[in-house]
Amino acid sequence: MRALVLVCSLKKSPAPSSSELLGREILAALADHDVDGEVIRVVDHDVKYGVTADEGSGDAWPSIRTKLLGSDILVIATPIWMGQPASVCKVVLERLDAEISESTMYGKVAVVGVVGNEDGAHHVTAEVYQALNDVGFTVPAAGGTYWVGEAMGKVDYADAGPKPDTTGTATKTLAANAAHLAKLLNDSPYPSS
Amino acid sequence: MRALVLVCSLKKSPAPSSSELLGREILAALADHDVDGEVIRVVDHDVKYGVTADEGSGDAWPSIRTKLLGSDILVIATPIWMGQPASVCKVVLERLDAEISESTMYGKVAVVGVVGNEDGAHHVTAEVYQALNDVGFTVPAAGGTYWVGEAMGKVDYADAGPKPDTTGTATKTLAANAAHLAKLLNDSPYPSS
Amino acid sequence: MRALVLVCSLKKSPAPSSSELLGREILAALADHDVDGEVIRVVDHDVKYGVTADEGSGDAWPSIRTKLLGSDILVIATPIWMGQPASVCKVVLERLDAEISESTMYGKVAVVGVVGNEDGAHHVTAEVYQALNDVGFTVPAAGGTYWVGEAMGKVDYADAGPKPDTTGTATKTLAANAAHLAKLLNDSPYPSS
Amino acid sequence: MRALVLVCSLKKSPAPSSSELLGREILAALADHDVDGEVIRVVDHDVKYGVTADEGSGDAWPSIRTKLLGSDILVIATPIWMGQPASVCKVVLERLDAEISESTMYGKVAVVGVVGNEDGAHHVTAEVYQALNDVGFTVPAAGGTYWVGEAMGKVDYADAGPKPDTTGTATKTLAANAAHLAKLLNDSPYPSS
Repeated sequence: MRALVLVCSLKKSPAPSSSELLGREILAALADHDVDGEVIRVVDHDVKYGVTADEGSGDAWPSIRTKLLGSDILVIATPIWMGQPASVCKVVLERLDAEISESTMYGKVAVVGVVGNEDGAHHVTAEVYQALNDVGFTVPAAGGTYWVGEAMGKVDYADAGPKPDTTGTATKTLAANAAHLAKLLNDSPYPSS
Repeated sequence: MRALVLVCSLKKSPAPSSSELLGREILAALADHDVDGEVIRVVDHDVKYGVTADEGSGDAWPSIRTKLLGSDILVIATPIWMGQPASVCKVVLERLDAEISESTMYGKVAVVGVVGNEDGAHHVTAEVYQALNDVGFTVPAAGGTYWVGEAMGKVDYADAGPKPDTTGTATKTLAANAAHLAKLLNDSPYPSS
Repeated sequence: MRALVLVCSLKKSPAPSSSELLGREILAALADHDVDGEVIRVVDHDVKYGVTADEGSGDAWPSIRTKLLGSDILVIATPIWMGQPASVCKVVLERLDAEISESTMYGKVAVVGVVGNEDGAHHVTAEVYQALNDVGFTVPAAGGTYWVGEAMGKVDYADAGPKPDTTGTATKTLAANAAHLAKLLNDSPYPSS
Repeated sequence: MRALVLVCSLKKSPAPSSSELLGREILAALADHDVDGEVIRVVDHDVKYGVTADEGSGDAWPSIRTKLLGSDILVIATPIWMGQPASVCKVVLERLDAEISESTMYGKVAVVGVVGNEDGAHHVTAEVYQALNDVGFTVPAAGGTYWVGEAMGKVDYADAGPKPDTTGTATKTLAANAAHLAKLLNDSPYPSS
């Protein structure tokens, strides 16, 4: 099976990104369940604003979309800004809005990784689950993993040191559940799809 | 398979309830997929505030919880107040918080029905998905159905007349997907459960 | 000037409550600006579910509402559960829904204090601001203060030790701004009120 | 006094925009209270992703920011996508995140206009209030106006015909309250600003 990790950092590569770090950790955890995949930092590509599958000349979304169509699991890895999903994450969700009427995402599984200096992970997860579920993605049990620091903290996940007992455990559970569910839905698609 | 519909109206029976109406419509749609079940209007019972499985003397939650443990699908049917989930819905989510560490809800499927005079269904859905998913529920593709009127409208769903092409279609899709997914997870539980 | 602090803990007095602690800290900070007031733990009283000003026999809301009508500043102090406002907080907001058509809250100022073991403060603040603003409250600059621990933490605010440089500073700013704004609106009411 | 209307449509001019229409209606209502101003459709300009006041070469934000610094009232006019604020709205909020430590926005008033085919206005309002309030904006009583159609509707605000009794009334109240509050805060700034 295949996973596509869309990293929603506001910063282009090679700037360090805590959300990319968590996205790669999710992909590594999925590898333990025979899922391989790819990481794309969205802002490295010229993804246009819009709610269609192809916004025309120069739009980088169609090639990302092609990779998503060939994947079983979508991983959204996003930073928190102001307690809310990053704008880049919202761009991705809006581009996926086009798929509702096409049912192209039916049977795919979606999971979420969220990082921030402080506060906001549950809300970001809620926003992403709802938007992706509307489009046809299925959310496995415990489909989110995250790290945030104490209130009004300033430390990034990348600098906070390993968190094997909290974020790490959540990431492993997420990966096991996502792989299990994607396998089931691959073998037995929804009747409506 | 069994479904439990928890209706989160603020009004006790026999007051009419649009959220109960939608909850019953979801149960009827599930019946087409060999799922039977029961509807409970939560405020008809003395469910205490709290985040444990049993809040002691007089608490009605333990008997509801027993029914939930015997069900494969949880349906939350809630009104919108001020664009947000009803307080009774939040009481239910808080009582389920106790199950996180027990993994008692792993493998169960959750879906949501939301009604209001106007505006708020997507956000309510987001809140419920996130809370239930944290607890271990799986959310099927298109796991929400809803009705709301035009901005600042005053009409209830129960009085708005049949909505077969919008809410009705969403309810049917929800039911088909929930039943399919519950069957898969019954036959093949998550490895972590 | 007067402030009313509504503490939305799920636990009755005398159980310790971190949200009551933060609520009392806000009241103390307001005292530096010649605002006195009162703290009410809502669950100590039998506040009924509903969206009217008086839900009938035994309803404790009307007496709380009377105190609110005599106050210039409403302080909502609430715990976070599952990344979201406590159900008791939602009960309070729903009871205030009755005031929209009456404009009874116009010219009053609202501020928010939020505590949790981990994550959710910004979202809780957003929910409370929106609901109270719809009802007619004005939100001063930096009208929220909060504390949460690191992701998946277990420590309560009451046990976390003093936080003078983060939560404490935010509380002082909130109090200064709330008192200033309440004074202005007392002296010069909105034309629509 | 001056207002700046930032329109967060995903479509560049001259494409028709319901959010621009509502933004212009808010500006017209403010004119009745001696507030003039300007409308900027954000996507017509190359506003970069980021959380600083100036993201370098080619960034159009600094010139928009200069206009905002010269304004007393910020109007965010945004469409809803998937029940949530438009990505362009999130870009604007993220760019304003830079102002928290500078207190540059203290004493300014923020209001919100939201439009969508169906559902989501209250939640969008909540997100925008919280983010802008954190930055130092003050939210006047009834600081939001909106229009959405019935659930799963397809009609745009621009095509829905005049709504004088619902959206129109809310817009007038918003304008009266915003102008009143901006005048008060101009004459008597917060002590912390």
